[in-house]
Amino acid sequence: MHEYYMKTAISLAMSAKGQTSPNPTVGAIVVKNGRVIGTGVHLQAGHAHAEVFALEQAGEEAENADLYVTLEPCFHTGRTPPCVDLIISKKINRVFIATLDPNPLVAGKSVTKLKEAGIDVRTGILENEARELNQAFFHYIQTDTPFVTLKAAVTLDGKIATATGDSKWITSEKAREDAHQYRHWHDGILVGIGTILNDNPHLTTRLPQSGNHPIRIVLDTHLQIPLSSNIVQVDGCQTIVFCGKNASETKEKDLLRHDVKVVRCKAEKVTIPFVLNELGKRKITSILVEGGAEIHGAFFAQKAFQQLIMYVAPTLIGGQNSLSVFGGQGVKSIDDGLKVEYEKIEKLGSDLKIIAKPLYAEV
Amino acid sequence: MHEYYMKTAISLAMSAKGQTSPNPTVGAIVVKNGRVIGTGVHLQAGHAHAEVFALEQAGEEAENADLYVTLEPCFHTGRTPPCVDLIISKKINRVFIATLDPNPLVAGKSVTKLKEAGIDVRTGILENEARELNQAFFHYIQTDTPFVTLKAAVTLDGKIATATGDSKWITSEKAREDAHQYRHWHDGILVGIGTILNDNPHLTTRLPQSGNHPIRIVLDTHLQIPLSSNIVQVDGCQTIVFCGKNASETKEKDLLRHDVKVVRCKAEKVTIPFVLNELGKRKITSILVEGGAEIHGAFFAQKAFQQLIMYVAPTLIGGQNSLSVFGGQGVKSIDDGLKVEYEKIEKLGSDLKIIAKPLYAEV
Repeated sequence: MHEYYMKTAISLAMSAKGQTSPNPTVGAIVVKNGRVIGTGVHLQAGHAHAEVFALEQAGEEAENADLYVTLEPCFHTGRTPPCVDLIISKKINRVFIATLDPNPLVAGKSVTKLKEAGIDVRTGILENEARELNQAFFHYIQTDTPFVTLKAAVTLDGKIATATGDSKWITSEKAREDAHQYRHWHDGILVGIGTILNDNPHLTTRLPQSGNHPIRIVLDTHLQIPLSSNIVQVDGCQTIVFCGKNASETKEKDLLRHDVKVVRCKAEKVTIPFVLNELGKRKITSILVEGGAEIHGAFFAQKAFQQLIMYVAPTLIGGQNSLSVFGGQGVKSIDDGLKVEYEKIEKLGSDLKIIAKPLYAEV
Repeated sequence: MHEYYMKTAISLAMSAKGQTSPNPTVGAIVVKNGRVIGTGVHLQAGHAHAEVFALEQAGEEAENADLYVTLEPCFHTGRTPPCVDLIISKKINRVFIATLDPNPLVAGKSVTKLKEAGIDVRTGILENEARELNQAFFHYIQTDTPFVTLKAAVTLDGKIATATGDSKWITSEKAREDAHQYRHWHDGILVGIGTILNDNPHLTTRLPQSGNHPIRIVLDTHLQIPLSSNIVQVDGCQTIVFCGKNASETKEKDLLRHDVKVVRCKAEKVTIPFVLNELGKRKITSILVEGGAEIHGAFFAQKAFQQLIMYVAPTLIGGQNSLSVFGGQGVKSIDDGLKVEYEKIEKLGSDLKIIAKPLYAEV
């Protein structure tokens, strides 16, 4: 039954994924005598935590009840008081926790405090599912840089465009809609200037039920971005452009007038580590990288992505010079290749969806 | 129950796949009063057909029994007398047939004859499974050219070698062993001269239980094949080399002395249609194309393969110039791409195995 309740708490948390950044997504359930007496989910940074909603709903009944929570309750006073104290004051009997909070401000301290207060605490129930739910938060809190998901729509022969540059549309509408869910789930969306010049995209989240628009990030060493492009002209979403140190200052001012933020690198060329550090400082906990090939190649070369999502269309376009999904140099030998782990392989309409996790050597 | 018995007949037939060429693979079962009283499988061209074995085993009991057979019984006298007459003489009650024989010498004639003899005939039971079993034979009998399976081991980014040419090993041992099963199932194995020069392969079937060695076919316009190469030196398997019209006659004689057959094209360069016609004339009903990239590209350009098997390793090697699975020009627009149908997607050890069927426009 513990897994059953925890699964429900994870579902609750999952429903708010994409709207709690820079906070993690958390769900909580209070159970007494086999009845659910309170449920809660953290909805948005600055709002109450999941445990608070669940315990409030339980009211007086919370005494001697069991609490299921997907993430270790908070120990520190942030924008809200510590949940750990609330749980103790409510005289909860047992606390079931899916995963500890890697945030150094918590990191097991809450578990210790709960145990010291005489509460029976058990951790690790559906831990993998709970970690996956907050993998972006976990990465961010431990590295101060955003979790990077690299997304690509490819043909079965690994191509993202023909030699003449045609790329529309490789995958089905169903796959393209699925991809929009990831825009909702990520704080930012990142593309290279080539994508802006070729496709003039909006880079917004277009789902039937609407969704959060990610911050739009463009890597544009020479500030070639046209003032007329959709991501400059269309309001409602923030845009950040990264440029090299020698990019035109006039163009920078023009962009600022259009409310586009420009971040100038110290180097001549925009580099991935610089970009990730800057985004981390701006509390952008996750980004979705949507190409093109050169950008993918740069993230590949820097080992700078944590998740790969490929939509593989049942189409072959052939040709050595058609555009490969990862541009750049690549590695010299197969042994130097980047090993990944297939996490999910599923049919999505006529396409194949593959989620893979790169296995970087431990530092 | 009809499907149950037919499934058993198909399993029987499957067990002999790869050893009956140029004949199809066929299984048969005789059933009476709910008991199996005879089973048979066609083992080798020139030997008795499946129905003969099954009816022989049934003996006197065959009268009024039911016969399940995966392919329409033969109508014509080949190296054995027509099965259709045997079935009638044995006074079989009902005949269940998975699929009709597309061979113009049969093609429904046997069904008609059985019906005229008063036998209850039903067709189409597990037809798709039975057709898949003999897809190579069906293709060959209808086109006079071999069924072509294109097989490639690729990285998740669609590459078969790094830019420096390293390709060992992309996929796991498990995937490589699986690939050997296809060598057993095909009459021939075809590679380009590049593969011979780079890898000096044996192109034999290496399975734990041994297996048929396919005829080795090399496309080698300029007869660059070294006399010292394994496929020239190692006995026990036949080798055919296709060359262009201007290739060295001295080299041809050298090869003939090593029992290598040389087929000279009428054109300067070896072309795929010529090769397929020649192989068809030699009763090679199926070939496995094992690369490299240029050969794959040539078969792609000619729309000359009927099945694609890709082993996709959980590895990324990146790079625009690393070798793509299909070399050559490729198509100009996505809409011109070759649509395929995913027939099977499965994990094979750490790799992914994809079987896809190209959907060529109907002529």
